[in-house]
Amino acid sequence: MTTNASFLIPVQEDIQAVETLMRSQADEHHPDLNTALDLLLSSGGKRIRPSITLLIGKMLGASRDRLITLSAAIELLHTATLVHDDLIDGSLLRRGMATLNSQWSPGATVLTGDFLFARAAVLAADTKSIPVMKIFSNTLSVIVNGEITQLFASRCKVSREDYFKRIYAKTASLFETSACTAAMISPVDENTVDAMRNYGYQIGMAFQIVDDILDFTGDQSTVGKPVGSDLRQGLVTLPALIYIENQPNDPDAQALYKGECLNDDQINRLVTAIHNSKAVQISLDEACNYVQLALNVIRRQPNNPLRKSLEELAEYIVQRKL
Amino acid sequence: MTTNASFLIPVQEDIQAVETLMRSQADEHHPDLNTALDLLLSSGGKRIRPSITLLIGKMLGASRDRLITLSAAIELLHTATLVHDDLIDGSLLRRGMATLNSQWSPGATVLTGDFLFARAAVLAADTKSIPVMKIFSNTLSVIVNGEITQLFASRCKVSREDYFKRIYAKTASLFETSACTAAMISPVDENTVDAMRNYGYQIGMAFQIVDDILDFTGDQSTVGKPVGSDLRQGLVTLPALIYIENQPNDPDAQALYKGECLNDDQINRLVTAIHNSKAVQISLDEACNYVQLALNVIRRQPNNPLRKSLEELAEYIVQRKL
Repeated sequence: MTTNASFLIPVQEDIQAVETLMRSQADEHHPDLNTALDLLLSSGGKRIRPSITLLIGKMLGASRDRLITLSAAIELLHTATLVHDDLIDGSLLRRGMATLNSQWSPGATVLTGDFLFARAAVLAADTKSIPVMKIFSNTLSVIVNGEITQLFASRCKVSREDYFKRIYAKTASLFETSACTAAMISPVDENTVDAMRNYGYQIGMAFQIVDDILDFTGDQSTVGKPVGSDLRQGLVTLPALIYIENQPNDPDAQALYKGECLNDDQINRLVTAIHNSKAVQISLDEACNYVQLALNVIRRQPNNPLRKSLEELAEYIVQRKL
Repeated sequence: MTTNASFLIPVQEDIQAVETLMRSQADEHHPDLNTALDLLLSSGGKRIRPSITLLIGKMLGASRDRLITLSAAIELLHTATLVHDDLIDGSLLRRGMATLNSQWSPGATVLTGDFLFARAAVLAADTKSIPVMKIFSNTLSVIVNGEITQLFASRCKVSREDYFKRIYAKTASLFETSACTAAMISPVDENTVDAMRNYGYQIGMAFQIVDDILDFTGDQSTVGKPVGSDLRQGLVTLPALIYIENQPNDPDAQALYKGECLNDDQINRLVTAIHNSKAVQISLDEACNYVQLALNVIRRQPNNPLRKSLEELAEYIVQRKL
């Protein structure tokens, strides 16, 4: 945990309870599922999605048990999508640790992901809220539909519209759900649910933009994958989009813009050029705009320490590892 | 549809509505998902699981809309598990038609299965019954846990206990859910829900035993996979178990019993020997016992034409393709 993740302090014990509940999902099932869950959960991460759920739910007066259950459902759904993503992408590392697919057969990895989806759905049903169940399942369709679109899309496509659709499906949709479902199990009105959905959406968009910046600027050992890996996979993210728009004379950027897929030399040059360009700062400014919108939303809630933590969480999104 | 599937007559129109609802799940999503759903649904099958749900729900007074939704959820969940199963097993044919994984990349096949899980969960949430949601998600865990157990289990294991556990997880669990969830959305008491669960369990066990018999006796063109394919994959099903118990002098059977994996010649000899042995009839008798238990349960319900169809459905289980 970095020092600036102070928003985690009010939910530290709750996050522990969420992790315990997640790990217990493999109990009374095949022992290798316990092993897999341990491996997946030990690779950690900041548990940012359950933190959103917990902070919002605590601020709005949801019951602790339901919040823990909901948070575990959301983080397990997220974990399940990562398991299948890493398998499909053939990723060997995530957050610097070996992925499940690097150690298990493809079949065992598919089934472990399926098992996590199933247990996430069981936990979502345990919230005993039909609207939560519905939005939860819908979010999974949105995420998977986004991945299928990305899989079938022409590689190296330069399109802002596609980019923002993709990061919504990939990331902001689940942030949105993490936030609004917490409100849905709280004693609040529809406007508050909408406001929280909006908060989740904005920080989710910012979060993915920052991830996409880190793909150019991050240290490989911290990010846990090679620098420029998106572009190497044919994914044109915001820093690359902005660079292409602003550098009409860079032949590599123009080749990409014309729909050509680049060779390794071209990619390496382009990754360095983007890293050293203003596109990084312009992208970060866009992420900061989203965070500002999230702050505007949350600051309309009554002032209290948990609201303050949600503000810190939003600000943290654009500070992490940069 | 064969002539003896007369139990389908009272639900023919409902099954059409279920198929329409299933196909509509890819609307507003990536067009290739429509293509995939068309491919998957056109390969047909008897829609036996939704027929159980529809017949029970109609008999017990559930609303038609909820029944259609629930039936589509169940059949979509079943379809999703088949998509991942065929991928994991590398099966190229199902019901004589090309599988999705024989035409699409592994990644696209994994994601299509995930999408179907998501849409099945959306439909289950649309039944607006929390107990249905819960049992639905739990059933998916049971199915997947069964597959993982099978995947990690030592091949060629000769154990009745393992066999019955496996066919429960693989098949009877979803039959049980198809039956009891129909009762759960009907105006009936807990005893009736339990009775319907029991009916579903019994015919589910019978259904899988018959499938396992057909793997030895079926015509490859009808079954859509090579004869003896279970044994070739190291799966020892009921006919093989019974044959091994009754033929202490068959060296192939004894090799299997000792935990040896057999070569092709041994498998071919053993498949023919099992096919020509009494083990087929003894297995069928076991399936008939399950069907008889299902009939006993269903005949305790008030007599009416839908109850009659459920009796026919139970009897059909042990008659199909034999």
